[in-house]
Amino acid sequence: MNKRRVLNVLGKIILTEVCLMLPSLLVALYYGEGDAWYLLAVMLPAALLGALLGRVRPKDTKLTSRDGYCIVAYGWIVISLIGAVPLFLTGEFRSYWSALFEIVSGFTTTGASVLAAPERLPHGVLFWRSFTHWIGGMGVLVFVLMIIPMKNDNSMHLIRAEVRGPTAGKLVPRMKRTSMILYGIYTTLTAILVILLLGGGLSLFDSLCLAFGTAGTGGFAVSAAGIAGYGSAYVEIVLGIFMILFGINFNVYYLILLGRVRDAMKSEEVRWFLLIIAAATLGIAVNIFHIVESLGLSLRQAFFQVSSIITTTGFSTVDFNLWPAFSKHTLVLLMVVGACAGSTGGGLKISRVLILVKSFFAEIRYIINPKSVQTVHLEYKFVDKPTLNSTRTYAAAYLMLICLTTLVLSLGGYDLTTNLTAVLSCINNIGPGLELVGPMANFGFYPDWAMLLLSLTMLIGRLEIFPMFTIFSRSAHDK
Amino acid sequence: MNKRRVLNVLGKIILTEVCLMLPSLLVALYYGEGDAWYLLAVMLPAALLGALLGRVRPKDTKLTSRDGYCIVAYGWIVISLIGAVPLFLTGEFRSYWSALFEIVSGFTTTGASVLAAPERLPHGVLFWRSFTHWIGGMGVLVFVLMIIPMKNDNSMHLIRAEVRGPTAGKLVPRMKRTSMILYGIYTTLTAILVILLLGGGLSLFDSLCLAFGTAGTGGFAVSAAGIAGYGSAYVEIVLGIFMILFGINFNVYYLILLGRVRDAMKSEEVRWFLLIIAAATLGIAVNIFHIVESLGLSLRQAFFQVSSIITTTGFSTVDFNLWPAFSKHTLVLLMVVGACAGSTGGGLKISRVLILVKSFFAEIRYIINPKSVQTVHLEYKFVDKPTLNSTRTYAAAYLMLICLTTLVLSLGGYDLTTNLTAVLSCINNIGPGLELVGPMANFGFYPDWAMLLLSLTMLIGRLEIFPMFTIFSRSAHDK
Repeated sequence: MNKRRVLNVLGKIILTEVCLMLPSLLVALYYGEGDAWYLLAVMLPAALLGALLGRVRPKDTKLTSRDGYCIVAYGWIVISLIGAVPLFLTGEFRSYWSALFEIVSGFTTTGASVLAAPERLPHGVLFWRSFTHWIGGMGVLVFVLMIIPMKNDNSMHLIRAEVRGPTAGKLVPRMKRTSMILYGIYTTLTAILVILLLGGGLSLFDSLCLAFGTAGTGGFAVSAAGIAGYGSAYVEIVLGIFMILFGINFNVYYLILLGRVRDAMKSEEVRWFLLIIAAATLGIAVNIFHIVESLGLSLRQAFFQVSSIITTTGFSTVDFNLWPAFSKHTLVLLMVVGACAGSTGGGLKISRVLILVKSFFAEIRYIINPKSVQTVHLEYKFVDKPTLNSTRTYAAAYLMLICLTTLVLSLGGYDLTTNLTAVLSCINNIGPGLELVGPMANFGFYPDWAMLLLSLTMLIGRLEIFPMFTIFSRSAHDK
Repeated sequence: MNKRRVLNVLGKIILTEVCLMLPSLLVALYYGEGDAWYLLAVMLPAALLGALLGRVRPKDTKLTSRDGYCIVAYGWIVISLIGAVPLFLTGEFRSYWSALFEIVSGFTTTGASVLAAPERLPHGVLFWRSFTHWIGGMGVLVFVLMIIPMKNDNSMHLIRAEVRGPTAGKLVPRMKRTSMILYGIYTTLTAILVILLLGGGLSLFDSLCLAFGTAGTGGFAVSAAGIAGYGSAYVEIVLGIFMILFGINFNVYYLILLGRVRDAMKSEEVRWFLLIIAAATLGIAVNIFHIVESLGLSLRQAFFQVSSIITTTGFSTVDFNLWPAFSKHTLVLLMVVGACAGSTGGGLKISRVLILVKSFFAEIRYIINPKSVQTVHLEYKFVDKPTLNSTRTYAAAYLMLICLTTLVLSLGGYDLTTNLTAVLSCINNIGPGLELVGPMANFGFYPDWAMLLLSLTMLIGRLEIFPMFTIFSRSAHDK
């Protein structure tokens, strides 16, 4: 590993995080609740550390694939460790580990909280908590690449390790420009959402925080009442639609920007994504009709929850823990499926599920006719062997990780549905689960070791399993 | 598809089933409870049908791979449909579908029952119910191959579709001899177990039925009290050990027969199997110690349950539904892992899990060094690409099937833990699950459509997913 180069980039990541804390500092100063000190208490030492690491001059600027994965993994750990400090200093958290859980939940856009009443946090810190969703949604490294100079090959490794889904690629030949295009689309969509929410009568603070939570498909609300607290069908529908927009592959928006609307509409992944949303909404609406007793309301509630869960945002307007079994099971299934690749959403991703389903049928055709050569196509293109292998191994690793994490978590007690959905919620970066971790509950009851385990699970899920394991792999540190 | 040849073999399968009902008929005649008529009522028409189908002369005796898979899939469906009739005629079942569930549970060696009190069945039918475990454990087709002449290539397809695990192969060049060796080992081990159980003071009837349930890793007991009803530590320990023996790859016994004991001991799969059993037994024993308050008893209870669940037998001596979360979660995890390939046990199989875990590490090494070629080894041999692909696709299909079946099952209501563990129990051919389908409960409360769904799930699990789908595949019926 090119240690000096990795440390150098980590320094730049830390400096970037300090800069990204500035808006929260301004909010804190504006509200004058004393939390500016909490932010400054971490920004100044972090800036110093970042500057020092930035002075480590690498002999060789080349980054291998393994260096890229290590930078992404260590980078996410470091920004979480630093980002948790202001939260911890507010005194609203039982321990540093539960503050760390909260901020990892922010950066990974999970949105699972340990707080029964987030509104008790001072505004600056509350803003920082929601802003981490926005940063984490598109990716910290993608942001860093926008502002620091780096060779094209090197940055490709970083983007591949951080952007979600099996088909992450460059939009334009130069990675720096790809980063800027992605963040440009992201900022524009977020700004539109803020304006729409302001139009719905929300305060600027709430509009910004909810927009960050929606854009990153995060799910932190700013009060215990959540989205239901606004009591506005308009806000619910706007958020429902925007969650879906942020769950769509950003390449689609880039194609639209280029005027290639027809190509954008042809996306197989997006079509399936919308079809699944429509089917699940209808299914749940029928299933909950006898509770709600209004067709319009049951459709609206079903649509919002489906959109929130499949995009892995995790906002909720009703306690779906009280819904009938079929509706709850559908939501658990959507948790696993997740959003589109190249979006801000988590989960397995629609494209991975499509590849797996198509692999299954290819295997059956192969069994029927063992002499035939079976191929898998996605988006009208042939899926190459490394992607196929990687996707299948990903699914198997995903299954094993869920089983093992649930087992370890059960050492603390609690029922299988709670533990399993807590793990599903964390690995897929959703937020709520069922039973004790249902939409109206929080994760605060888990002990500190479980907080740490679930934080790690969220990071593993956000970075899509493999990067976090490269740093445990011995060969990553050789050379 | 060579339809005439498939029908011809199906006729032979039906005739074989009629012959396999003869011991039950003798038991029924001995006890004289009138159930001989129930058996005869199906044996005579079935024999006629079998004889008629046997008269369908194929123009071409060649069987393709697809024909083999279709024969196995249809064969299992047909023997279940026929085998359920005597059970239904007793009047102890709510409907034909619940009798079908019971006999599919028998043939697939699941051992899940809809009966609250199986001892109410007449002895002949009760014997038939347990005997299906013994037939299904090693396989109906493997049995058929022993008695009917078939070309070597053709029978290879059948064995591959029926014997469990990714590495099914021939022991000796001639398939007929392989079948005889497998059934020889199987019968000998079963006979030893019967003698040991007789030595423990059990009646001949109970010894035979329990031995069938153990040998097939099935799990049907002959009374509601189950194994605990005998109140004998000796019976518990003998069964605990024999379940493990039947969960081991039968190739190991063949090697021992050949005197190659050292090769047999080297099996990587068996080593991991025993290691997992030891680790899980210890973990659970520590976890339940505060309930049982005796080191010996907690070790004994833990060992029996671990052995019963990992081998997918499903006997139980205690209500593990009342155990702490960690113990219950461990058992659920063992349900997924399953026994060795080439044994009578179900589940994913140890060898598949090993291939998946090794694939995961190979993928990480590949990510770290994308120019390297990574291979996976099992049993000191290189795992070839088709096996690797098939294993990974299998794991993904397994995950998808569990998710979808649980979703459909939830249409009937009940909680997630009940539905999920019912599906896990059926697809892995275990027997008990948790909550409403716990070890002291039964599946009788599910409606008829759920019975049918779960019967299909058991068959899909027993035949390892792909064969059952080949009959739904359109291209299987072309030509």
